[in-house]
Amino acid sequence: MRIAVDAMGGDNAPKEIVKGCLRAAREFSDVTLVLYGKEEAIRNELSEDLPNIEIVHSEEVVKSDDDPVRSIRRKKESSMVKAAYSVKNGENHALFSAGNTGALLAAGTLIIGRMKGIDRPGLLATFPALSDKRAVFNMIDVGANADSKPLNINQYATLGTYYSKHVHGIDKPTVGLLNNGTEENKGNDLSKSSYALLKENDSIDFIGNVEARDLLDGVADVVVTDGFTGNAVLKTIEGTAISLMSVIKSAIMDNGIKAKLGGLMLKDSLKEVKDLLDYSKYGGAVLFGLKAPVIKTHGSATEEPVYHTIRQIREMLESSLLEDLISHFENQ
Amino acid sequence: MRIAVDAMGGDNAPKEIVKGCLRAAREFSDVTLVLYGKEEAIRNELSEDLPNIEIVHSEEVVKSDDDPVRSIRRKKESSMVKAAYSVKNGENHALFSAGNTGALLAAGTLIIGRMKGIDRPGLLATFPALSDKRAVFNMIDVGANADSKPLNINQYATLGTYYSKHVHGIDKPTVGLLNNGTEENKGNDLSKSSYALLKENDSIDFIGNVEARDLLDGVADVVVTDGFTGNAVLKTIEGTAISLMSVIKSAIMDNGIKAKLGGLMLKDSLKEVKDLLDYSKYGGAVLFGLKAPVIKTHGSATEEPVYHTIRQIREMLESSLLEDLISHFENQ
Repeated sequence: MRIAVDAMGGDNAPKEIVKGCLRAAREFSDVTLVLYGKEEAIRNELSEDLPNIEIVHSEEVVKSDDDPVRSIRRKKESSMVKAAYSVKNGENHALFSAGNTGALLAAGTLIIGRMKGIDRPGLLATFPALSDKRAVFNMIDVGANADSKPLNINQYATLGTYYSKHVHGIDKPTVGLLNNGTEENKGNDLSKSSYALLKENDSIDFIGNVEARDLLDGVADVVVTDGFTGNAVLKTIEGTAISLMSVIKSAIMDNGIKAKLGGLMLKDSLKEVKDLLDYSKYGGAVLFGLKAPVIKTHGSATEEPVYHTIRQIREMLESSLLEDLISHFENQ
Repeated sequence: MRIAVDAMGGDNAPKEIVKGCLRAAREFSDVTLVLYGKEEAIRNELSEDLPNIEIVHSEEVVKSDDDPVRSIRRKKESSMVKAAYSVKNGENHALFSAGNTGALLAAGTLIIGRMKGIDRPGLLATFPALSDKRAVFNMIDVGANADSKPLNINQYATLGTYYSKHVHGIDKPTVGLLNNGTEENKGNDLSKSSYALLKENDSIDFIGNVEARDLLDGVADVVVTDGFTGNAVLKTIEGTAISLMSVIKSAIMDNGIKAKLGGLMLKDSLKEVKDLLDYSKYGGAVLFGLKAPVIKTHGSATEEPVYHTIRQIREMLESSLLEDLISHFENQ
């Protein structure tokens, strides 16, 4: 399997992208990584020549503040656009970037194209569930589609179900609709109409409404919502975790020698908590519902998250995820 | 000033409600608390006879799973409905309940009524800001209006500004629109249209879009959003904080004697963190935009949050908040 990598995307490109690719290429001999970007800059970071790493030179770069659609249309020589075309043309099987999210969504939708039967792709992210109920849960859409419709949310449910089955090995994933109450009649117009569709969707195990308060407690395997709310929830989880950990750090540092000593003794435990929260080990966010996997990691991604994302893409390509989804939606 | 208290609302009613009222009545001799509910049950909890506590017997109770509008229309003899009518009739100046949120919203809107110039009231909640930028921030709407319109969001901005000025003493509160990116052109249809109105609102200091990730870092004094997203963000903050604290607790308990000892030494510091997160000390959520203050605390509220909420209502009544808002909207 061949993965097209936008080696110029993200704050730490190409250095950390190349390092993560090297680690993945060493471990997975069945994966060929095709790095798109400035050849010299990439070569400078390549500490080793591996048979399963290729470089395709591209002169331009899509910048983080570029207008998404315009940059995809105009920067034909950019690493992201050339990588996307290589997937469209069948030379490579998946697209990976840590660059401009909006541009990657546009490249995925406009260049690679939607899967038949999918109206709008959704962005799926995997989170740790901090309870004994389950290890992780997937939320879709976390930001591809700010104005999702009930039809989209219903398709996200099917996409998330297949993802949870194939990538996380969950036999019969439960699907919850994010809502402002658990009762069936709760919600805004969008969630009420979505509820009605989800109830009739026989390709999923719909468990009804779930509340944002219960997400990290692992209330469902798949949580569906519109891209605006999902994005707000994703960023609230991140922001709350970061603020809290920083407050705890201050409380340890500013409360005298006893607290400092206590903090020292708890160092391993707190590291454990931090690792638990670090969802980069589940890979990047999947722009889901396209003809090929398109994956986005954090712009700040370093070697480790890049490596995990490639591992995740490999899992997606190894399984029959896309084939099964294609045949599912073709038979609708 | 006279505050109508629904003594039967919430999981711990009437016991904790009465205890909180006792504490407030002792401290604030200028406040008279009028407790609505089953007289005998209330008297059983009243450990002391205070001149500024009155009881009005009411036979019925609005339950937490009652249909909001129906219960307000039918349960005329309930503590919540009788308390609401006492505010409508001018006998009392504010309404407080820890009961059924939907029913309280309905009682506020249908019985007490909207302020002139306000189309839909919004629910305002105060959160701690975990940075040096500011001590607290207010978010409105956190759930009164699942289908808020741009007009509503613009009114929330004005309401939040007056609240922040009068209750938190902020001279010129900044207002941010919760959005999925900080650039002006970001968002869904609703947030884009709201942005246009907020930009023209000269009664506020609008600083543009803010992201959920930066809320607890204190990005603005007032954050406005629709009631569906605001509710999801509120519950995500709660859920993330609870999950994280419980994971930290497990990490301390399950990592041997060193971690346990460390935890013991950090006990005060972690308590400090917990106190910082405890936003019940800022009072309850204000159903804002009505002719009189209507305040809701958590259904699980105990003595302490009840006391803080009465303190908050007193601050609202003592200041010229409502008068100023009424004159503002009358002059629009």
